[in-house]
Amino acid sequence: MFIDRLVRQIKEKRSNVVVGLDPRLEMIPRFIQEKYFQQYGKTLRAVEEILWEFGKEIIDQVWDIVPAIKPQIAFYEQYGIEGMSAYRRICQYGAQKGLLIIGDVKRGDIGTTSKAYAIGHLGKTQVEGEAFEAFSVDAVTVNPYLGDDCLKEFMEDIKEWDRGMFVLVKTSNPSSGQLQDLEAGSKKIYEVVAEMVSAWSSETLGSCGYSSVGAVVGATYPEQGERLRALMPRTYFLVPGYGAQGAKAEDILPCFNEDGLGAIVNSSRDIIFAYAKKDQLWKEDQYGEAARAAALRMREDINNHLVQQGKCYW
Amino acid sequence: MFIDRLVRQIKEKRSNVVVGLDPRLEMIPRFIQEKYFQQYGKTLRAVEEILWEFGKEIIDQVWDIVPAIKPQIAFYEQYGIEGMSAYRRICQYGAQKGLLIIGDVKRGDIGTTSKAYAIGHLGKTQVEGEAFEAFSVDAVTVNPYLGDDCLKEFMEDIKEWDRGMFVLVKTSNPSSGQLQDLEAGSKKIYEVVAEMVSAWSSETLGSCGYSSVGAVVGATYPEQGERLRALMPRTYFLVPGYGAQGAKAEDILPCFNEDGLGAIVNSSRDIIFAYAKKDQLWKEDQYGEAARAAALRMREDINNHLVQQGKCYW
Repeated sequence: MFIDRLVRQIKEKRSNVVVGLDPRLEMIPRFIQEKYFQQYGKTLRAVEEILWEFGKEIIDQVWDIVPAIKPQIAFYEQYGIEGMSAYRRICQYGAQKGLLIIGDVKRGDIGTTSKAYAIGHLGKTQVEGEAFEAFSVDAVTVNPYLGDDCLKEFMEDIKEWDRGMFVLVKTSNPSSGQLQDLEAGSKKIYEVVAEMVSAWSSETLGSCGYSSVGAVVGATYPEQGERLRALMPRTYFLVPGYGAQGAKAEDILPCFNEDGLGAIVNSSRDIIFAYAKKDQLWKEDQYGEAARAAALRMREDINNHLVQQGKCYW
Repeated sequence: MFIDRLVRQIKEKRSNVVVGLDPRLEMIPRFIQEKYFQQYGKTLRAVEEILWEFGKEIIDQVWDIVPAIKPQIAFYEQYGIEGMSAYRRICQYGAQKGLLIIGDVKRGDIGTTSKAYAIGHLGKTQVEGEAFEAFSVDAVTVNPYLGDDCLKEFMEDIKEWDRGMFVLVKTSNPSSGQLQDLEAGSKKIYEVVAEMVSAWSSETLGSCGYSSVGAVVGATYPEQGERLRALMPRTYFLVPGYGAQGAKAEDILPCFNEDGLGAIVNSSRDIIFAYAKKDQLWKEDQYGEAARAAALRMREDINNHLVQQGKCYW
């Protein structure tokens, strides 16, 4: 199952770090940009190659120290067909390197439409009896606003193709509380979603004791992480917000169970663009090493905090 | 402004009908499928041409009797790069025919990521000072679960590029009430979202008196449509659920204002696959005429009900 593959990688690499690929063209080293603008002109075709080369180098630098990468499809989608092609190539390359790929697509729609998204991002598209993978990855993020008959369609492909999903429960952005924190009776909306997720989780428990149906729980709201951990004991958390968004390792600890498992922590900009940080002395062409160093620092930071709390799987 | 262009078309064509393009490969006439499978084999490339020919014929048949079409991107996305290419070609062709294009993408994410979606689906992508359109259309559907700092990013491109959006308020699917109908204090969640939308609407009022920031309000819940009409007087409603999903013209009337405006009504399968309905006598190669006849019937059905209610703009 997806979740067993994830936990195995977490243990083997002793890492809960997920590298988020949110490429901003203007932040990609200039020498890469120039190389392809010279070859293809100022075109989206050039951008595809720039995104691909940048993403490939990041993967080559982190594949052995993190269990998963999380490409954010929006940053590819904004470059059209060529951007989507770069997204696809990067997902496929990461999988070849043994990484689990979490497509941060945040899709979600009514039943039949969610089914199409599930086929496109988790399953296989049938054409005259032949099966094709459109943008299939190991797991995707899903938006719950439309309720269970949306999630149900993703469940079908999760079971059929041995995939996973992380449902948005409590997001890391400043205005996330506007709807998610509202109190409906005795429960907050994110708690209602947590109960939906927990119910689906119980249908896809792996031998590791966790489920292939996970939850997105922003690290920027630690007290809520603790509450949600209690509401979804068997649910793996995908935790955004570490680093650039302001959350620290101590903020993330409540998302882990006593066994030291239960959460993977994403960082995007702070890792992939570490070379450009003011306090760093990296040269532009060392952006890959800089990303690896940042991912190693983050792994150590989280592991040290887990050890201090006695939340340890090794 | 987008909303002025929409209302002008509604009045010129005396039509509130939006044709939803939700192509299901297996329901597309066999002769079209065979033509391209013979030419390109059992490939996604063949599917791209099948989706394109089918979509183009529907547009050629309805462009003069409806103000807008609403391609559902999921049904293209599931066919990968080639599917996305078909989506793009169909959106561009519809625009050439003078139709307004509403991309049913239901995107929504944290601030910087929503910005990327907004650029990709409403705005222009900047590459070395050159501007490219990725999948830009006149308006998109947006998911509000992440709150205002998500919607804010779409607002920027709506204002800069003269576009629009329809925010999911109350969706048409069976489980939509699971979160959307929960009561937070004195308000239901969809009412809280309605107030968010109404606030953004006031920033983008057109000379027609309506706003380029609209709302998705499912016709399958008429009593809620009435309540929402009162909460969002200047907001245009995109109303799904007519036809295949079970809603009738009378269910949709509450979504209209006394001026006979305020709502556009979407129908997908019942129009684009009208040729295949049991009670119809169309031949397969008449699928275009069948779609036109179905769109005309729907326009007449809604207009007759509006006249009966004295909700009339002509």
